[in-house]
Parts: sequence; structure tokens; C-alpha cells
Amino acid sequence: MKQIDFSRLLQKLENARVDRPNKASSGTLSGHAAGEPFEKYVYHQLKEEYPGNIFKQLELLNDVYLRHPEHITVAQRNALFSSPTALFLLSRVHGPTQAWSPTHIFEERQNDTADIVFCGEGHYVLLDVKTRNLSKQAMPPNIISAYKLAKTCAYMIDNADFEAVDISYIEIDWQEEGSQLRCLQAHHADLFKSDPRKLYINWAAVMQIQFHVCDLPQTWKGTRAEWAKAYLEAFVESARERVKVMQETYITPFLKYIQ
Amino acid sequence: MKQIDFSRLLQKLENARVDRPNKASSGTLSGHAAGEPFEKYVYHQLKEEYPGNIFKQLELLNDVYLRHPEHITVAQRNALFSSPTALFLLSRVHGPTQAWSPTHIFEERQNDTADIVFCGEGHYVLLDVKTRNLSKQAMPPNIISAYKLAKTCAYMIDNADFEAVDISYIEIDWQEEGSQLRCLQAHHADLFKSDPRKLYINWAAVMQIQFHVCDLPQTWKGTRAEWAKAYLEAFVESARERVKVMQETYITPFLKYIQ
Repeated sequence: MKQIDFSRLLQKLENARVDRPNKASSGTLSGHAAGEPFEKYVYHQLKEEYPGNIFKQLELLNDVYLRHPEHITVAQRNALFSSPTALFLLSRVHGPTQAWSPTHIFEERQNDTADIVFCGEGHYVLLDVKTRNLSKQAMPPNIISAYKLAKTCAYMIDNADFEAVDISYIEIDWQEEGSQLRCLQAHHADLFKSDPRKLYINWAAVMQIQFHVCDLPQTWKGTRAEWAKAYLEAFVESARERVKVMQETYITPFLKYIQ
Repeated sequence: MKQIDFSRLLQKLENARVDRPNKASSGTLSGHAAGEPFEKYVYHQLKEEYPGNIFKQLELLNDVYLRHPEHITVAQRNALFSSPTALFLLSRVHGPTQAWSPTHIFEERQNDTADIVFCGEGHYVLLDVKTRNLSKQAMPPNIISAYKLAKTCAYMIDNADFEAVDISYIEIDWQEEGSQLRCLQAHHADLFKSDPRKLYINWAAVMQIQFHVCDLPQTWKGTRAEWAKAYLEAFVESARERVKVMQETYITPFLKYIQ
């Protein structure tokens, strides 16, 4: 089966240069703005290497629906995905899927799951590009909603659909060089090779799992089914802990003022 | 008592122009990047009008500590604020306050409470500038942490310190005009004139209170003490509701997978 050759990709990324997206004079080069040109760079590198397999998430949906113009209901369009897990992670909600037509295709949307999708023989790799300014001490970035990942695990278990989807991350560590940004190092990590019991969920920050890709240990030895169950155990435990913290922090101390 | 003349400020802001902070070619002009030049513009307008009263939050702290070089302990520095509520909202935590010295003053920090502080005769107006791209449908922005506001109300009640601090917001509605951004309309709202029982708390989004300044009704007729109590009641009720939602959404549905 055709796969992304990640070591080759990382080699290509090292020392890659992109144009600085804003004027140096305008100060702060913030996370999202800095990330965009590198994300495009990764996309173009992969598209060149795997032209028939690499899509932006919306391109994949447009491509699949355009190739099946006879599928016009949402149920028919959903049936174009053999994997319920991939369908859940990649498709848009009912309304937009129904409204889609060859003359009214999807446009980019900020909360799509993946920046880039590799698709081949019913297998999907969801790929996100995280960028990091080496001159700053940055908090670990938002990776994926812990709740979306919990639902993903539930879909995997309900449908015994464990192998159709991989979720991968690329980290690009860059620094400014005049009017350009240069990648000094690049890293890759596979979410399902990490230990799901050790993922950090930031409940207050839109329930995001947060980590630096370069720091994600790739140590999981169990099956994907075991991963899904272990993640759900950790997720529920973390939610219970959060409920307890909320009670202790946001409710109890204020009761004396409102009685 | 000297006060900010907000109607005069709004008049000055209408039709104000600032330079576009990024290249048009680099695409998205995102929230924070677009906001910076307008925030600076408001600061300079106010500084011109009230030179001895207008500060950035860090400038105020540096100014107060520099004028009292004999106050070297944290307790001494805290005593420079007559209002415990203002102290809570404006000062930095113990470590940085202790480490401050005339040769090691504070630098800008993203999570300061206010963009701009008006200070006069022991009265503080904390002012934040929110910017809005009229060509986009935007969600209401983050205004202030609901938890920080709950603690503020607790300080007000504990110290009967109700009048020392106002919290005000300016909204600037802009559109692109070539290489510039132009303010079409500006709005002002006073947090303590809103109905605290109707503030929306987005628990998942860092517990932020969210609203468009132009949409905030200025209808509160009660005292500031009544405002503080009503807010704490609403905050605790909202926290309890969130706990219930978390239980129902993030715990119960996943229990069947982990037994």
C-alpha cells in the first residue's frame, strides 16, 4: 500500500524557506499567520510527490462528490466513504453536505479536522502542520479536540473500523531570516503510536489535546482497538477530574456570597 | 472627577484610518493582527487628550513602582494601590512583582487584563479595544475571563470596594480600503452597566465572557454591590449547568466502552 514517506518529507523540510507573511515592522508574527506559508509548503511538497493522493480536506470532499454526481442525497454522499470513522472526521455536517452541488462546492473552513489528507485504497492519513517560532518559548499547541477524538474512538469501536484512518502531525521549527522564515528542524509523530493515557487535555482551552509534536513519545505497543479503549478510559477520567476541579474552583468558593 | 469623554473618543474614531498590518497577498487578516494598529490608535488619541492619566497596563505598574523606589517588598508595592480590586486586576503575580526593579521593569504581556488604563484620583478605568472586520460574520469576541470577573466581584464585596474600578470596552468596526483599514463605526459599553444575569460565559473557550460591544445593553439600574452579587449568582449557576453538560456529554455516553 502506498504511504507517505515521512523521513523523506522531513528531509525536504529541513532548511526550507518561505516568505515572511507580514511586514517585519508590524511586530508580532503570531501563530496562525506564521503557520500558513509552511502549511502550504508541506502541501505542495506532498502534492508533487503523490499527486493523485494528496488533498486539502475540502478538495477531497469536492473531488469525491464531483466524481459521483449521481449521488445527491446526504445518505448517498456519505456512502461514498467506506470507513465510518473517515466519514466522521472528514465530512461536513448535514446541511452543507446536502447543499453541495458541482456549481456550489465547498470552500475552505477554519475548523476542518486536517490541513492535508493523504487518501489511497480506502486508507486515509489526516495530516496537520504545526509551526513553532524557535525564538519564543511557546506553550504546546492545540492538536485536536479531545471530544472529537473520543467520538472517533467510539466510531472505531462501534464499527470495528480500526485501520482506515491515521492521524499524523508535522512540526516545523523555524526562525526569521530577513524577509524569510527558515525551517531549522522538522518532526513527525503518529497520534495512534502515542500512549493515549498520557495525552494532556486542556478542558478550558476548547477541550484541546495539547503537545509539541517533537515531544510525543511513539511508544504504544498495543493494537488500535486497545488504543481506542485506553483513550476513552483516560478521556472519561479526565472529564471527571475536570468536573471535580470546576466544583472546587468555580462553585464552592463563591457560595458564601450568594446565600 | 476627571473622566474619559467616551462620546468625544467615538467621534474621533469614526473614519480613522490605520495601515494594514500585513501584506494583502498573504491572505487572511486575522483578529489579533488587525486589532493591534487600532488599539495603538485609541491609545494615542487618549494619551494626547489625558497625558497624565492614560497608561498601558504595564506602563502604569512601571510608573507607580518607579515613583516609589523605597517600596521594595511585594507587600509594600501592593500597598501602593488603595483599591484591592484594582490591585487584583492590574498587578502581576508575586514572582514578577518581587523581581521588578528600576533596571528590570515590566514588558508587554499578552494576558494583561486591559489594553489601556485611565487612572486618576484613585479611580481606574480598564479599557479594552475590540476590533471587528465588517466584511466577515464574526463570533462575539472574548471579553474577560468569567472566573477573573467572579474573583473581582468577590474582592469588591470582601472590601466594600465597589467604585474604584470601571471596566469599559470600545468596539471598532472596520473595513479594508487599499493598503489601509478604515473605522466605519465605533461603540462603547461599560461592563457594570450591563445586566450581569445575561452575560454569556463560554466555558469551553477559556471561560470567556463573549459579546459584541455594540450589542451589550446598558440597562442595569441597581447598585454596584447588587451587580457583584447578581453576577456571582449567575456565574455559579452557569458553572453548575456546565458541570451537568459535561457529565451528560463527555462522561455518560462513553461509559459503555470502558466497562
